[in-house]
Amino acid sequence: MKLFDGGRAPNPRRTRIFLAEKDITIPLVPVDMGALEHKGDAIASRNPLRRLPVLEFDDGTILCESVAICRYFEELQPEPALFGRGALGKATVEMWQRRVEFNLFGPVSAAFRHIHPAMKEWEVPQVSEWGEVNKAKALEFMQLLDRELSGREFVAGDEFSIADITGLVAVDFMKPARISVPEELVHIRRWHKAISSRPSAAA
Amino acid sequence: MKLFDGGRAPNPRRTRIFLAEKDITIPLVPVDMGALEHKGDAIASRNPLRRLPVLEFDDGTILCESVAICRYFEELQPEPALFGRGALGKATVEMWQRRVEFNLFGPVSAAFRHIHPAMKEWEVPQVSEWGEVNKAKALEFMQLLDRELSGREFVAGDEFSIADITGLVAVDFMKPARISVPEELVHIRRWHKAISSRPSAAA
Repeated sequence: MKLFDGGRAPNPRRTRIFLAEKDITIPLVPVDMGALEHKGDAIASRNPLRRLPVLEFDDGTILCESVAICRYFEELQPEPALFGRGALGKATVEMWQRRVEFNLFGPVSAAFRHIHPAMKEWEVPQVSEWGEVNKAKALEFMQLLDRELSGREFVAGDEFSIADITGLVAVDFMKPARISVPEELVHIRRWHKAISSRPSAAA
Repeated sequence: MKLFDGGRAPNPRRTRIFLAEKDITIPLVPVDMGALEHKGDAIASRNPLRRLPVLEFDDGTILCESVAICRYFEELQPEPALFGRGALGKATVEMWQRRVEFNLFGPVSAAFRHIHPAMKEWEVPQVSEWGEVNKAKALEFMQLLDRELSGREFVAGDEFSIADITGLVAVDFMKPARISVPEELVHIRRWHKAISSRPSAAA
């Protein structure tokens, strides 16, 4: 089994952090996204969408999509549970995973891809107006998330979950997207500092 | 338990189809999205994102996000399995669920919301260029999906899954978004006809 990895990009990082939290080690195949290596045949033959990460099993089976790879390992090794416990717990993690994905991770990515000059060859066409709209969307959702985090330790409840991992990579991706967590959102800042200090954050 | 429902909109429909496939009946509370009723206090007090569907338990617990509500019922009543079976099966459904969500459902929604005149008060600001880009994205992904469906019955494999439900609501949502499945994509057309003929499609 090997994992085609994409370095600093948020989706490959999400999977690496998840594996670190599970204490699972898989051989990584580095792919240089800066050199657009993920657009080449090695990845395209494994993932027609030409995105990373890609998990390849020894028999050639391919699994793509960061969260799908995470779920595979959750099923294989349930502890620590990162997708929640019990019917309502699992559904609540899914709710927050989706909320963070669609209202923070997505908008931050869109702001980066549609505004940053380095993304000109990646996102064709860049629609700068759409990038700006997404900066505002990300800021709006952070207000909501801050209120939620005023009452609990983690994004989906009292236990660390994949929703925190998605939140962490989204907030860290705000730097190249040139968005900041407003000073007054003290609960997001407290949460981000705590999540960043976990050993997995360095994965 | 009751489900705040949103009629023809794709996310509420996705949950209703899922429940119909599971043969689960829940009292529905109709919310008139055409009259922007989901923006009012009844929904906002339950979901700060003011979106539907919203599941309310008898003790007042709230669960939002269509797919999270579906997962709750999958955990409660595993058969028929709509999120896959076994570690690799579940991960494969998640992979296709995400692929269809991000590359078809999302683009079709964006095309509708950013181009359709009726969406002017919903999507502020409408970015028509972004809407047009998304029509192209939807068409591009359909080419990929058609090739995949040439070799199997359902989106994620040989069993019907939530990825088919997401695909169905996305394709049906193409009508108001003014996108058509190209004539030559015969495998998507065969799949869409088969999924549409299931009793659940009328839910």
